[in-house]
Amino acid sequence: MDPTEREVACFEAGIKFGALYHQFAGTPVSPESAASLERAMEEAIENQPHCASVDVDVLAERLDTSHGYAELTGEYMEVRMRIEYADTVVHTEMRMEEGYPMMRVVDVVERP
Amino acid sequence: MDPTEREVACFEAGIKFGALYHQFAGTPVSPESAASLERAMEEAIENQPHCASVDVDVLAERLDTSHGYAELTGEYMEVRMRIEYADTVVHTEMRMEEGYPMMRVVDVVERP
Amino acid sequence: MDPTEREVACFEAGIKFGALYHQFAGTPVSPESAASLERAMEEAIENQPHCASVDVDVLAERLDTSHGYAELTGEYMEVRMRIEYADTVVHTEMRMEEGYPMMRVVDVVERP
Amino acid sequence: MDPTEREVACFEAGIKFGALYHQFAGTPVSPESAASLERAMEEAIENQPHCASVDVDVLAERLDTSHGYAELTGEYMEVRMRIEYADTVVHTEMRMEEGYPMMRVVDVVERP
Repeated sequence: MDPTEREVACFEAGIKFGALYHQFAGTPVSPESAASLERAMEEAIENQPHCASVDVDVLAERLDTSHGYAELTGEYMEVRMRIEYADTVVHTEMRMEEGYPMMRVVDVVERP
Repeated sequence: MDPTEREVACFEAGIKFGALYHQFAGTPVSPESAASLERAMEEAIENQPHCASVDVDVLAERLDTSHGYAELTGEYMEVRMRIEYADTVVHTEMRMEEGYPMMRVVDVVERP
Repeated sequence: MDPTEREVACFEAGIKFGALYHQFAGTPVSPESAASLERAMEEAIENQPHCASVDVDVLAERLDTSHGYAELTGEYMEVRMRIEYADTVVHTEMRMEEGYPMMRVVDVVERP
Repeated sequence: MDPTEREVACFEAGIKFGALYHQFAGTPVSPESAASLERAMEEAIENQPHCASVDVDVLAERLDTSHGYAELTGEYMEVRMRIEYADTVVHTEMRMEEGYPMMRVVDVVERP
């Protein structure tokens, strides 16, 4: 069965999350460089089709900097995105839940 | 509005595609190493939740090997995946369309 | 035979180049997002040990934006780094040469 | 001052280590998929210039699989490489030392 518009919109939302996570996982990050990484992640993924906005928080206070910097993983970031596909808007977010970086569809609505 | 089971299944499918693409884009690849890369990509992404199967073809005959190897991009691969989420099965694929690595939901069906 | 201080300094320089290239290859980039990506790449790699400074130019005018954005590859960037290891300073650079992103040691000098 | 042949050989060795680490960091890995990832990492990096051999051990017994799989980091692998540049052979290795994935030049010798 062909996907509905809402289902394609959710597929597109998932692509952006997988892309963001696996493009930037492993990046060296410190409290000093967190802001530039957040901005680059947001603007990079906003280039992708149907990606209306991306908001990344690198949790600088959680970074283990015993070696001067950490490598970015899901433990160190929270992300929200808005995907607009045709007349559908999808809100998604990622945060840690029980030790796993959980990506979720928050809601799927018709564009106002 | 909360997502339906089918919509979450499509979101999960998208995550796997974004992950596969952005984890492995840039990997040095030659006709000789294409087979091991295909297998590693398949098995790596099959580790992720709800990912029932992944099939990657690295298009070895298209690789530009004028410098001995190429860097993996969407131009050089075709991918099919089956995602199973609760009672829903999603089939997806990626291939080049007009110069862009297009990721698509092929169908969304109830698990037999 | 153990490496000399200068040889270790060159090894450290190489690590930073490989890291920068393969961490960020594949990142979606457009003329609008080039500046934030440059800055994030510089600050990320400067976190690594012995990396005194990194200067990245994303060649925005060369980006193929027929699909709205390109994926970052060596074709689209030039990089200069200064590595300081003990009393040795290494200058390195990367630029395209005959279709290959060539990374070079420019010079190895004693710290003034 | 121009680099010596030995210094360039060490620079080339460093490139391969940075490339291997940052290309594959973040890859989903489980005890079942460790072998295919090891092989793909080895063959991918062996494509690069002057890279005579790469040997990767994914430390499957250390993987935290409480969520079914882990993401590859330096904590989970040990690597040895042999670089051959002109008449120089460089042996390098990576392993964890005090919580940091330390990359080292083991020796630099003339090709027999």
